[in-house]
Amino acid sequence: MGPIEAGSGALFITLEGIEGSGKTTQMGFVADFLQARGLACTLTREPGGTPLGARIRALLLDPANHHMAPTTELLLYFADRAQHLHQVVRPALEAGQAVICDRYVDATLAYQGAARGLGPERLRWLHDLLLDGLMPDLTLLFDLDPATGLTRARRDLERGGRPAGEARFENEDLEFHRRVRDGYLDLARREPGRFRRLDAARPPEGVQAQIARVLTEFLAGHPRPVRDPHPSQP
Amino acid sequence: MGPIEAGSGALFITLEGIEGSGKTTQMGFVADFLQARGLACTLTREPGGTPLGARIRALLLDPANHHMAPTTELLLYFADRAQHLHQVVRPALEAGQAVICDRYVDATLAYQGAARGLGPERLRWLHDLLLDGLMPDLTLLFDLDPATGLTRARRDLERGGRPAGEARFENEDLEFHRRVRDGYLDLARREPGRFRRLDAARPPEGVQAQIARVLTEFLAGHPRPVRDPHPSQP
Repeated sequence: MGPIEAGSGALFITLEGIEGSGKTTQMGFVADFLQARGLACTLTREPGGTPLGARIRALLLDPANHHMAPTTELLLYFADRAQHLHQVVRPALEAGQAVICDRYVDATLAYQGAARGLGPERLRWLHDLLLDGLMPDLTLLFDLDPATGLTRARRDLERGGRPAGEARFENEDLEFHRRVRDGYLDLARREPGRFRRLDAARPPEGVQAQIARVLTEFLAGHPRPVRDPHPSQP
Repeated sequence: MGPIEAGSGALFITLEGIEGSGKTTQMGFVADFLQARGLACTLTREPGGTPLGARIRALLLDPANHHMAPTTELLLYFADRAQHLHQVVRPALEAGQAVICDRYVDATLAYQGAARGLGPERLRWLHDLLLDGLMPDLTLLFDLDPATGLTRARRDLERGGRPAGEARFENEDLEFHRRVRDGYLDLARREPGRFRRLDAARPPEGVQAQIARVLTEFLAGHPRPVRDPHPSQP
């Protein structure tokens, strides 16, 4: 995670995966699991984890912006992230919290780097340069066949589970989502110490069992000062 | 300007200066002057030279976003520019037009690089990396004492000449605007071949006389295939 970590008990966990992989649904489970073990949690997401970021998110996901140049898209994600790190993630980590974030830099590497062809290496390097290279301690990769994911995601949009104004990536073809998934799997292969691949094709309870196993193992390997989840004084 | 230039007659002119320097007011004069000499002109601006850019502009200039991190601001300007180059500037140059742009990369170097302290050298290098380093052929610097400029700009806002929702930079203090001006003057000293400094404290006719002199001299030194401004066939 970087210089913030030493001795603070802070923890930075990211959830990644293609559209329809169910990661957003599992945010609450991850938080409940950690809180039950005494960790104070901040739940957040990218894009849109700040008020300004919410306005950037609207630009990024709006299907009307289908003419967006790949570099524009990349820079809007970086702009959202810069504000999010400044306003939410770093302050929470500095306060010793566990930050649980729905998408982070790996999404940029998979979507813009791999699937849009901007090159993951170059983007990783921009991340280092522009955002001091803050990396997660643990990344849960909700892995799923893109055809299944896309069917789920489009059904969710039809049912109003997500706003229709956020369908820009769901409108990309299956080949695009295959490149995203391959991008994620490639990142996971390169950093086996940070990534845990979950089989997101299983029903929600099956996915939760995998999450519980991964988190238990991770916490056992990374002892940290455990805070009282219900302190008598604030 | 880069590889587009060779033989096409294309020309890229930018207008730069602090708030209240009058550059936007003189856009039309520059265009009329060039059109009268047979150059087809595209008038545009940053931020906000595309439909997506207009939405990014609204974020950048909205006084409500006073908590914007300097890196976020920088990346939003770059995002706007990436789209603008892709959708407006490069196509117009490739079509052999004269592009007249209200603010471009020098504004980023002066505002974010010098005044916000992100470092002009580093930003110039990001411009090269992310946007292929496209530079103007000629930059008119509307130079003015910042106290005068700020008084003019705030009066213009009060009179409704500009939307109140675009006042974020006018709300910065005089010291900030001094750093912007010093940043511009420093850029002009480093690239005397590209920059022409105009005395923007003069009344509009006096500024126009300077513009006419600069453009006449520039066109004399850069002969190009002159198009018939009123071609009989499209």
